[in-house]
Amino acid sequence: MVELYEDERLDYLLNEEIRIIQSPSVFSFSLDAVLLAKFAYMPIQKGNIVDLCTGNGVIPLLLSRRTKGKIIGIEIQERLCDMAKRSVQYNGLEKQIEIIHGDIKEAPKQLGYSKYDVVTCNPPYFPTVSKEEMNKNIHLAVARHEIYCTLEDVIRVSSQLLKQGGKAAFVHRPGRLLDLITLMREHRLEPKRLRFVYPKMGKEANTILVEGIKDGNPDLKVLPPLVVYNDNNEYTDEVKQILYGIIPS
Amino acid sequence: MVELYEDERLDYLLNEEIRIIQSPSVFSFSLDAVLLAKFAYMPIQKGNIVDLCTGNGVIPLLLSRRTKGKIIGIEIQERLCDMAKRSVQYNGLEKQIEIIHGDIKEAPKQLGYSKYDVVTCNPPYFPTVSKEEMNKNIHLAVARHEIYCTLEDVIRVSSQLLKQGGKAAFVHRPGRLLDLITLMREHRLEPKRLRFVYPKMGKEANTILVEGIKDGNPDLKVLPPLVVYNDNNEYTDEVKQILYGIIPS
Repeated sequence: MVELYEDERLDYLLNEEIRIIQSPSVFSFSLDAVLLAKFAYMPIQKGNIVDLCTGNGVIPLLLSRRTKGKIIGIEIQERLCDMAKRSVQYNGLEKQIEIIHGDIKEAPKQLGYSKYDVVTCNPPYFPTVSKEEMNKNIHLAVARHEIYCTLEDVIRVSSQLLKQGGKAAFVHRPGRLLDLITLMREHRLEPKRLRFVYPKMGKEANTILVEGIKDGNPDLKVLPPLVVYNDNNEYTDEVKQILYGIIPS
Repeated sequence: MVELYEDERLDYLLNEEIRIIQSPSVFSFSLDAVLLAKFAYMPIQKGNIVDLCTGNGVIPLLLSRRTKGKIIGIEIQERLCDMAKRSVQYNGLEKQIEIIHGDIKEAPKQLGYSKYDVVTCNPPYFPTVSKEEMNKNIHLAVARHEIYCTLEDVIRVSSQLLKQGGKAAFVHRPGRLLDLITLMREHRLEPKRLRFVYPKMGKEANTILVEGIKDGNPDLKVLPPLVVYNDNNEYTDEVKQILYGIIPS
């Protein structure tokens, strides 16, 4: 059993294997988070994983289906943190997933430097925020805008948390690709795998997935294009598989 | 009429609109050059365009169908330069295209700084070359390897030739994407359009097309994926259109 507050719902993940608490007025996960959880390298049997800016914990919940390693999710908003904790409980994943309420900038000091195998992050995408937007809904504003952490914070902290050879995976918008890549290299995360997500064939990419290795050698691969919708405006088979875990017939 | 030497052939470009001298033992243009000639921004009515490392002049010949501007092609190998000049003559394009035998590193001094609207380059892709390869075929070795010019030379010279707001378009391998982008930014060419070429759906990209604007504002677009072959191993319609100018029925 789980307690649901206000407009919270208990949604399904991965063909009903997992359930997650969401709220349209506070936080709902996006397709980007799901794509990142599938894109990131995962050690199968053991390992230590951190998800920064974890929101309602969607990435740790999804990763728990791909690894037996320990997963820590960090979220600065107490309200979201609480949603994430209740979702972990509901799914009986307390032994594998720990949700921490805190500022990612303090994470290396609290969790330890160079100890982690994988760091993931679906960070806020937009550098600035208007006062109006900030006042309207603080939860959504913090999740979407670089209010508490900048892209550079995310990348610096990821690098500090990772072991040598550890992997960091991020999702972002193509407009920030150059910043992302430049900052990763500055912080010893060598980009190794890059995947572009196109809403449809013939459209510009609207999302990028990138994975870097701490102190890795330069050797970038650009993976096959990931196309979200087919010509009939339905999810493509690959996206269905990522979202639902199986290809529905 | 045109004189053909040794194993030279007179091949067709763009549905027989243009002919080009090629030789399997000296130089044949690649699909990459054709894609670049289509990808690059072109002023229609007038303008000054330079193609660096022009080889047998394939890019200037193709660009002449997209612009009335003047096009200069620079090639360091005398033998290729001669092929390019004869192709220009054969097509009666001497008034529009000038082929210069020279080192691109000297180009800004010879042609002038900050005078050009567009620079294109399909540079040598590989940093190093073995002695064996060098001895076997010097023409191919120079075209493929950074023997006479490095990627940084290409980018620095492009920036020197361009006016403020002028555009540089390059084609390269994904493994060099990070170097390409980093060097472009160092030399004031802000990357604005990026297109990935995938040999087939579901395969990794093997080619990248990038265009930067001299002193442009950061704002990168990732264009729709360009897929070369369909599932039947035939060129896709888009590639047919680029290669032949029309979609063959």
